[in-house]
Amino acid sequence: MNDLNCGVEILDTTLRDGAQGVGISFSVQDKIAATRALDELGIAWIEAGNPGSNPKDAEFFKLARIIRLEHAKLCAFGSTRKKGLPVNEDLNLQSILEAETEGVAVFGKVWDLQATEVLNVSLEENLDMIAETVAFFVEKGRSVIFDAEHFFDGFGSNSGYALKALKAAAAAGASRIVLCDTSGGAFPDAVSLGTRAAIEAISPGPVIGIHAHNDIDMASANAVSAVKAGARHVQGTLAGFGERCGNSCLAVIIPSLEIKMGFRCLPPGKLEHISEITRKLAEIANVALPESMPYIGSNAFAHKAGMHADGILKNRRSFEHIDPALVGNDRQFLISEVGGRSSIAERAREIDPSITKDHPVAAALTAKLKALEAQGWQFEGAESSFELLVRRELGRYQPLFQIEAYRVVSEHPSGGAIACSHAWVKVLVDGQREIAAAEGDGPVNALDCALRRALRRFYPELDAVRLTDYKVRVIDGNAATAARVRVLIQSSDGKRNWATVGVSEDIIDASRAALVDSIEYKLICDIERKFKAYL
Amino acid sequence: MNDLNCGVEILDTTLRDGAQGVGISFSVQDKIAATRALDELGIAWIEAGNPGSNPKDAEFFKLARIIRLEHAKLCAFGSTRKKGLPVNEDLNLQSILEAETEGVAVFGKVWDLQATEVLNVSLEENLDMIAETVAFFVEKGRSVIFDAEHFFDGFGSNSGYALKALKAAAAAGASRIVLCDTSGGAFPDAVSLGTRAAIEAISPGPVIGIHAHNDIDMASANAVSAVKAGARHVQGTLAGFGERCGNSCLAVIIPSLEIKMGFRCLPPGKLEHISEITRKLAEIANVALPESMPYIGSNAFAHKAGMHADGILKNRRSFEHIDPALVGNDRQFLISEVGGRSSIAERAREIDPSITKDHPVAAALTAKLKALEAQGWQFEGAESSFELLVRRELGRYQPLFQIEAYRVVSEHPSGGAIACSHAWVKVLVDGQREIAAAEGDGPVNALDCALRRALRRFYPELDAVRLTDYKVRVIDGNAATAARVRVLIQSSDGKRNWATVGVSEDIIDASRAALVDSIEYKLICDIERKFKAYL
Repeated sequence: MNDLNCGVEILDTTLRDGAQGVGISFSVQDKIAATRALDELGIAWIEAGNPGSNPKDAEFFKLARIIRLEHAKLCAFGSTRKKGLPVNEDLNLQSILEAETEGVAVFGKVWDLQATEVLNVSLEENLDMIAETVAFFVEKGRSVIFDAEHFFDGFGSNSGYALKALKAAAAAGASRIVLCDTSGGAFPDAVSLGTRAAIEAISPGPVIGIHAHNDIDMASANAVSAVKAGARHVQGTLAGFGERCGNSCLAVIIPSLEIKMGFRCLPPGKLEHISEITRKLAEIANVALPESMPYIGSNAFAHKAGMHADGILKNRRSFEHIDPALVGNDRQFLISEVGGRSSIAERAREIDPSITKDHPVAAALTAKLKALEAQGWQFEGAESSFELLVRRELGRYQPLFQIEAYRVVSEHPSGGAIACSHAWVKVLVDGQREIAAAEGDGPVNALDCALRRALRRFYPELDAVRLTDYKVRVIDGNAATAARVRVLIQSSDGKRNWATVGVSEDIIDASRAALVDSIEYKLICDIERKFKAYL
Repeated sequence: MNDLNCGVEILDTTLRDGAQGVGISFSVQDKIAATRALDELGIAWIEAGNPGSNPKDAEFFKLARIIRLEHAKLCAFGSTRKKGLPVNEDLNLQSILEAETEGVAVFGKVWDLQATEVLNVSLEENLDMIAETVAFFVEKGRSVIFDAEHFFDGFGSNSGYALKALKAAAAAGASRIVLCDTSGGAFPDAVSLGTRAAIEAISPGPVIGIHAHNDIDMASANAVSAVKAGARHVQGTLAGFGERCGNSCLAVIIPSLEIKMGFRCLPPGKLEHISEITRKLAEIANVALPESMPYIGSNAFAHKAGMHADGILKNRRSFEHIDPALVGNDRQFLISEVGGRSSIAERAREIDPSITKDHPVAAALTAKLKALEAQGWQFEGAESSFELLVRRELGRYQPLFQIEAYRVVSEHPSGGAIACSHAWVKVLVDGQREIAAAEGDGPVNALDCALRRALRRFYPELDAVRLTDYKVRVIDGNAATAARVRVLIQSSDGKRNWATVGVSEDIIDASRAALVDSIEYKLICDIERKFKAYL
């Protein structure tokens, strides 16, 4: 019944297993936005929740009926029936049915120890629970995905019983049998062995799938290993979210399967959107993706050592395993004096295509960069500040506001017994002055709030901007409290993200510089977009 | 020449390859602290820098000669000689020699494309460059580790030439031949194949090693796969730092090799310190470790789903792949449960020898620590603040001064055109009040100077104290400028060094807490020393 040809079917469980990750919590609206994003990418199955155990998930499934999905089928998740209870009296199974999804994922025990010690049932009743639950949903017309929990541990401990449990699910009509490494402790060779044995045991029969966890950093390797052994269904979460160390990260596995192994996972033309959609999903979950994330992280194709940058320019293959455009990512030459004039020119060309390595502006920028780096500036990860620097050098720049004065006060005690910070800022915009004050959680927050308040009258669009990350790095620790600090700020207006930097011996002044760049960058981008739309 | 028995030799390159990671920059002092930490863990080799290309690294090696290392040998890194230049005229090789390390890591091209297109030399000259460079260092008595750059790509493109290059290094006397997946795009089966071929080609001969990168999330799988194929030397960085997506993460691979595969990598009793030392190294680099990091992340053994927690209570094996104590991690809190309480008692015993694990103070301290950790405090690397905490709990503590009030102002412009910070502090000592003011480079420096000035009259010994390092870590980046910050301060009085910590939403207040602890710790130590001398 393998209807997948030379493709590998993808099931994303961000909204179910991913939601069990520490610090992750989706509202119903979040779940709808995530479902749309996953569908846009062309994911085959979206496992969207456990309606039996979670009323919020039941509400989602009710709303989900009216979402028009282009590619994806929805799937509700739940366990086998309760012990000693007929299937049609089990309220959990009833709730899953009421979700009215095309697919139902049923998880059951296939490790003898789990059946006897955790569920506390006989090995025979456990097989009945699997068979009856699968058959129940098949009869109601659902496509049943059977998740064989702890399959690899079970296969190691009692392979005969583990395979018998798979056969029970297959005989009852499951369309997919998914081998789960629930505790995440399996190595790829054990996964390969178990997958081959499972295929042999139920063949010809349902498609075999893999569901891995990353507890020993083998989730990607295990998914790939199962596919090499014959699995054609891969479960995971797009950004790798999940309990403990996370699930298999689909944004990493899909590019490996498609680009390096020749399997089709997504509809044609979708792979190049995987970076953008994964970032969108992380935004919905309000989680910062690791910058070092394979394939789609902002550092995944970043070259710092001059030697590497030089090698890349001579031959792309020399230090890049794929073309980053295939996954919608970008090559990045970290802006640093080490990287040299050619990578600086490359960045400047994005603003003015006429700039070459030998253009006088490239030389001037390189000199400026060297001087700034010697003072502790660093434009890696602060591309927007670098862009402003290039614009200033090109003369394509007009300050949109000016801070005439500010004052930030931190004091203790202040009225009450606790510490408190407040600030006022005076700005000058087009010859008009505005002053505003604010309190804050700490001096930088107070300055940030006061500055936005002062500018609001002139630039109401700044209301959409929020700071999403704030980092402080002490540059020369040995000078201790008189050391220079570098402040990095990430900003977002809901559509785009950008990063800016400021350096000073005074953390307030370094923050001021990064805040000003962040606001100017937003205003310049908006003006240019309007101008282009006007043309 | 495999002198490693059933062990796998570990080389950590945090200070060389790790330092090429985006946003990572070590001062010479950081490098010395990291070297000590890696040695404490029992790492066999520390690849500490490239003295030929980096004057800071050369300075480190000069200082490193006087560090007494218990376990580790140092290793300097550099490339094969320049084309067309005799080895004894190559200044880079000379700098490596001057580093006076026991080991030298030489990287060379083994991929034909790299030799001809990037180095622009003939295939024959490349072999000569490898052989002559290795022989040069062997003659000078160095143990040479040959890093075969891009080995797996080279093996795929021209296996005959790749193996010839390994043989050239082996024949010239290299003691280790390391197969590098430089672009990080290899899969474990290709690594296994290449490793077996390399062993066959040079056997009996040098130990074979693996150096992997994580560009397709296979760095751990590739290291394990190479060891299964016969490699007995693994390179990586303890916390996984490195260019692009990072190097093999040793804090993940070592537990897999030791616990799951039965290889010895560290001296006995060291594995249980791997969580603590990896966190210390991340602290030195001022990088936050991912909470979902396998084995040592704070979420690695965190159970959210009620079902899993329930399973754990019934049978630990049901949802945990190893006992977290084996790697010094904990099911929920890092320094809380049994492992935690005994190490807390151990620390407390240094102040009061009567305290055991079951002493009520140990329980009270554990509870207090849990509460503080939940607010973002962390006492790893701030032992003196922890000692003050213990003293407070024991009642062996008398505040030697109190800050009644302070006010810190940062303003721009201030008199001149530049930003300026000033502060005043009012202290209470033995019923006497003193107020003092100071200007500073930034608000924290101003507060620090004013506080010292106010206390000088009572405690002239504080004149000897200087702050030697100041680090700021934003704890919850997503709250941006309103996020909590943790400030770590290192102090010295010329004889001893100590470290303190403060946490607050307000960076000034967090700094105030760490400064107060630093001064109190100095005063208490001086009093106790005088008291002991009197006895």
